[in-house]
Amino acid sequence: MTKNLEQMKCLFEPQSVALIGASGNPGKISYNILSNIVASGYKGKVYPINPKGGEIFGYTVYTKLEDIPGPVDHAIIVVPAQMVFDSVKECAAKKVQVIQIITSGFSEVGNTEEEKQIVKYAREHDMRILGPNIFGTYSATAPINSTFGPADIMPGGVAILTQSGALGAAMIGKTKAENIGLSTIVSIGNKADIDEADLLEYLMYSDQTKVIFMYIEGVKQGDRLVKKLKEVTKVKPVIVVKSGRSKRGAMAAASHTGSLAGADGVFDAIMKQCGAIRAETVQESLNWCKFLSNTSLPKGPNTVIVTNGGGIGVLAADACEKYGVPLYDDLETLKGIFADKIPSYGTTKNPVDITGGANPAGYEKCLRAAFENPEVHSVICLGCETAMIDVENLPGMLEKIYHDYKDTKPMSFSFFGGDAIEKMVSDLRAKGIPIFNETYDCVSIMGALYKNLHNINEPAEDFSFVDSIKVDEVRINEIVNKVKADGRTFLLAHESAELMRAAGVSMPISKVAHTLEEAVDLATGMGFPVVMKVVSKDIIHKSDAGGVALNLENRDEVIDAWEAIMHNCRKYNPNAKITGIEVCEMVKSGTETIIGARQDSSFGPTIMFGLGGIYVEVMKDVSFAALPISKKAAMNLVESIKSYPLLLGVRGEAKKDINAVLETIIRVGKVLLCCDKITDIEVNPLVAYEEGNGAKAVDARILLTKD
Amino acid sequence: MTKNLEQMKCLFEPQSVALIGASGNPGKISYNILSNIVASGYKGKVYPINPKGGEIFGYTVYTKLEDIPGPVDHAIIVVPAQMVFDSVKECAAKKVQVIQIITSGFSEVGNTEEEKQIVKYAREHDMRILGPNIFGTYSATAPINSTFGPADIMPGGVAILTQSGALGAAMIGKTKAENIGLSTIVSIGNKADIDEADLLEYLMYSDQTKVIFMYIEGVKQGDRLVKKLKEVTKVKPVIVVKSGRSKRGAMAAASHTGSLAGADGVFDAIMKQCGAIRAETVQESLNWCKFLSNTSLPKGPNTVIVTNGGGIGVLAADACEKYGVPLYDDLETLKGIFADKIPSYGTTKNPVDITGGANPAGYEKCLRAAFENPEVHSVICLGCETAMIDVENLPGMLEKIYHDYKDTKPMSFSFFGGDAIEKMVSDLRAKGIPIFNETYDCVSIMGALYKNLHNINEPAEDFSFVDSIKVDEVRINEIVNKVKADGRTFLLAHESAELMRAAGVSMPISKVAHTLEEAVDLATGMGFPVVMKVVSKDIIHKSDAGGVALNLENRDEVIDAWEAIMHNCRKYNPNAKITGIEVCEMVKSGTETIIGARQDSSFGPTIMFGLGGIYVEVMKDVSFAALPISKKAAMNLVESIKSYPLLLGVRGEAKKDINAVLETIIRVGKVLLCCDKITDIEVNPLVAYEEGNGAKAVDARILLTKD
Repeated sequence: MTKNLEQMKCLFEPQSVALIGASGNPGKISYNILSNIVASGYKGKVYPINPKGGEIFGYTVYTKLEDIPGPVDHAIIVVPAQMVFDSVKECAAKKVQVIQIITSGFSEVGNTEEEKQIVKYAREHDMRILGPNIFGTYSATAPINSTFGPADIMPGGVAILTQSGALGAAMIGKTKAENIGLSTIVSIGNKADIDEADLLEYLMYSDQTKVIFMYIEGVKQGDRLVKKLKEVTKVKPVIVVKSGRSKRGAMAAASHTGSLAGADGVFDAIMKQCGAIRAETVQESLNWCKFLSNTSLPKGPNTVIVTNGGGIGVLAADACEKYGVPLYDDLETLKGIFADKIPSYGTTKNPVDITGGANPAGYEKCLRAAFENPEVHSVICLGCETAMIDVENLPGMLEKIYHDYKDTKPMSFSFFGGDAIEKMVSDLRAKGIPIFNETYDCVSIMGALYKNLHNINEPAEDFSFVDSIKVDEVRINEIVNKVKADGRTFLLAHESAELMRAAGVSMPISKVAHTLEEAVDLATGMGFPVVMKVVSKDIIHKSDAGGVALNLENRDEVIDAWEAIMHNCRKYNPNAKITGIEVCEMVKSGTETIIGARQDSSFGPTIMFGLGGIYVEVMKDVSFAALPISKKAAMNLVESIKSYPLLLGVRGEAKKDINAVLETIIRVGKVLLCCDKITDIEVNPLVAYEEGNGAKAVDARILLTKD
Repeated sequence: MTKNLEQMKCLFEPQSVALIGASGNPGKISYNILSNIVASGYKGKVYPINPKGGEIFGYTVYTKLEDIPGPVDHAIIVVPAQMVFDSVKECAAKKVQVIQIITSGFSEVGNTEEEKQIVKYAREHDMRILGPNIFGTYSATAPINSTFGPADIMPGGVAILTQSGALGAAMIGKTKAENIGLSTIVSIGNKADIDEADLLEYLMYSDQTKVIFMYIEGVKQGDRLVKKLKEVTKVKPVIVVKSGRSKRGAMAAASHTGSLAGADGVFDAIMKQCGAIRAETVQESLNWCKFLSNTSLPKGPNTVIVTNGGGIGVLAADACEKYGVPLYDDLETLKGIFADKIPSYGTTKNPVDITGGANPAGYEKCLRAAFENPEVHSVICLGCETAMIDVENLPGMLEKIYHDYKDTKPMSFSFFGGDAIEKMVSDLRAKGIPIFNETYDCVSIMGALYKNLHNINEPAEDFSFVDSIKVDEVRINEIVNKVKADGRTFLLAHESAELMRAAGVSMPISKVAHTLEEAVDLATGMGFPVVMKVVSKDIIHKSDAGGVALNLENRDEVIDAWEAIMHNCRKYNPNAKITGIEVCEMVKSGTETIIGARQDSSFGPTIMFGLGGIYVEVMKDVSFAALPISKKAAMNLVESIKSYPLLLGVRGEAKKDINAVLETIIRVGKVLLCCDKITDIEVNPLVAYEEGNGAKAVDARILLTKD
């Protein structure tokens, strides 16, 4: 068990809790917390602390933390902001493992420095801090409710991590109202120390937790989150709502947009990469949580829609495409299941239309046949209120079906109609049956389930190819350190080229010739065509000076160009000191791509890919991923741009060397990871040639940290 | 009043109704219809028809239609399918205006021919048919409920047109359950005659109808729909749900996909062009209907969000961007309204965070200040359940606010929390207040309202520019008729070019020279560079024969090319009869665009625009509109492709001649409209030059009807 996991256990399953700033005054937050701890049936030791001493809820109030006779592993601080640091110091003396700082008045109001100091102190004393600025934590495992929110929390399988206190507190009531049992709800507040990644480590191993829901407003130290999310989503579903997905929302959240597609594009891509299932609305995510915490995984992809109305069947098929629910299409099997159970004007094709004439018995026959067939893995059952639907007998039938098959095959229901139907839906929902009025809702939960199945079935990431690719880390760091020593935060073109070569990325060869003979030798050595450019610190605008010659095809053209450049430049600036003429390999044309790697302010090392020029600039056709990246993830990155067919070859063109592109992506990623002084790398363009002919970088721009 | 409007009035406000196939047997559909007519309090004459005679519900049953003493303007046919045509004939004899054919068993089961015959007969006898295969019609104006669905329909302002019987019937109950009053609900069924366009004409003039909701599965005669929708949406909102929006859904609906972006892309674009407001789900559309039928229009765009939680504020801002709700951003005014009413840790920026400490009095102060300020045009009020929220006093306050301001400024609410909050939301909703649990729902209704405001404020379409552009309709039809006479359904290249020239579209000039002198004269006349191609019916593969010369820059090169082509071709095929050599203007390169115009199977004449090559083929970056198209709509068409910045000029390039592109779009559209034998036109590429330099079509492909 890692140290972090041990300390998170002290957060969720404490042996003893000290409440620093306890009060017997029912108007106080700390009173509510103690009252909730008592009401939640917490079995460990409870130590209220208040200089006044006395007794609250029958507990002895200690005047100081140090007076407590036994050990304390979990402290909750509710004292005013200016007294918090002193309390933290007392916790250190008492060897507390984890502290919840409920108190607000820190970084959220600009008091960032003290928050940092507190966390630094705590970490130096082997303590972890949750908060500050939180409403507390509930844990069904302990059980303990140390929030100042509602006392009445329903235990269950859903863990909620929330960055918004107000929304989180309201979710306690909301989940209760919707019969969603919680394993925990944690308010993360300012995330000064403990963040989602720390909490996920515990939640991954907690058997109580079946589904994890995170409400995120902004990501810090996203690289840790990425790593942990990838692990957790292989074991249990993680559902994410992030606010600030729009430009306007991001403005409102005062969070940074940045990078080409805006920060939300990066967030969205990385959540997908990590297997987190993103919901748009809070209601949607709660629907998913409830379903996923109560439903077994389907044994395969074959989903069948059974409906009494063609219209809602089509709407459901639309929703299946939107939410990624795979529909079963074996016409023969479907006919075998349904043909003798439905009228001739129905259809046995999926969505299976059992017609508006279906009564509960008709539904039951069809549903049982579907569930009993081994080829069918999950069922979506829809209904419009008709004269035949018989709302008296329908709910009983649906309930029976649900109980008979829920342990073997997932199912969801949607029924649409008047008061009686709405009452049926709400009654059955109260009984835990996944049933909705709206067709899209009942499909959306099935979509979340299939995304989870996909994550769980996905083989573990394979880094063997990536590991086999070497970059010269020593040389890369040498180049960077030299630039840093030079006081610069950017690399010059030749430095970038050298660094890229050290990373095994093919860059055009370029050398400075000091004589005509040297120029001819260089050109012959690197192969024609070449480019020549004057080298002189006195001539900035080389083209204006006539100091550049392109596309030189042979020895004679190099000689002519030498003479012309010298002549032009001397005429342009007679006093210019000319060091020589740079001879560069000319990169043949091909399909231009762009690879970007950067230290994202939220996610740490990330990588971006797109096709060059218009595709990136105008069409914003780029994809993102977090680093490190496996070969498969790199392939996903490349495949997920819309212009990907251009790499496969369109309009009679040959396929491009995608493997060379993948390898370059991996190499560029490795550069960023091997040198923490590099913040940005842009290889633009990387020219991809026909399959087997590799790819060549034309230019690389590398930026370094400012400090 | 048009004849159609008169007849639609007979559908919705009949003076007398004959029910052909009436039955006194409570198990029968016709019994339910008569029972509903009676229960709905219909004031006109009711004539049940049944060969057995007798009496039902106190009405004399006539054995034959002709026996009815007075006139009958509205007949409802419920007899078996094989007897329907005879009944229709009897209706003609009785001079019935409009017939509802409830009976099914026609085109929906393949019996298309009889359906066509019936409609043909009816139209010849000045009668209109609704259906067949419908559940009937409810009209609050008459009032009359001639459906066989629920008897209990709440009258109100929402008109529902539904192509799905099952969903439509269920919507009667659903709207009742949600307190949504209906002006009408019409089942359109097989749409054999009366379609949405006919019904819209009536609903546009019906004061009872405030909002129109259409559930569409497929569009027939969409050109009529487009025309009518454009008119109606200037007066009242039209909300549309179309199923089959996904590929899978379209398959399920057995409807055609087709064209580049799939049929849904065309549908979606045309709905936007017409001002119809498209919803994704039925629940969403009902929320919109309810809000729009009860709420006055905002006087301007300044929407303010008032929230007690930052998290839901950001979620609401995201939703505002998604649904097109314009947020107010005058920081000074906002500060003036809110600064003295909220704590210092709140924010007066929009979304205005009045903090979790807000109680009902705090909310009320802020809301009233917002509503009273003339700069604020609409308010979205959000809340998370907090300790302060006081669910006892909150609902009364919200209700008061709603009643005090609803007539002057639109507002919507969302409150999120436990049972007490949910009960408050459901109680207030029952009172007609637009309040939801989910933040997105309360923003989405405001979005629909602003889309409606936009439609109503949009100036009428201006066709003056389009009218000023002339195409030579006579010549176009001559060319097409000649091709038809030739038995072809496609135009040859020179025919297409000639037709396009007749439409005023610049096409490369091309003439056949029979002598060298003639070739030189032609080339000089059209301007260099030119292309030359051998003309010989004996030489098919001109390039292979060496019969093509490109990029000829001057007189000498034309002379050389003449000799070379003649020499090559004689050598290639000594027996070939050479008619001459075609001299063509060579089109300079520029930005390639594509214009397509076609008779869409659903919408009739439509037009498509995109940039050439990859942008269309790989990026699928195209836009669609229905014809005829105003200059402004043509501009929308051009602007709505993602690659539009390329026409504006990127990377230092000059702006392209967008006016020339618009004019060509309009000309191509006019060609399609002026000749009903043309089914498809593709101008590909239309090369756009720098602003002021026009655009030139290189090639045009024109297809004709098969019949």
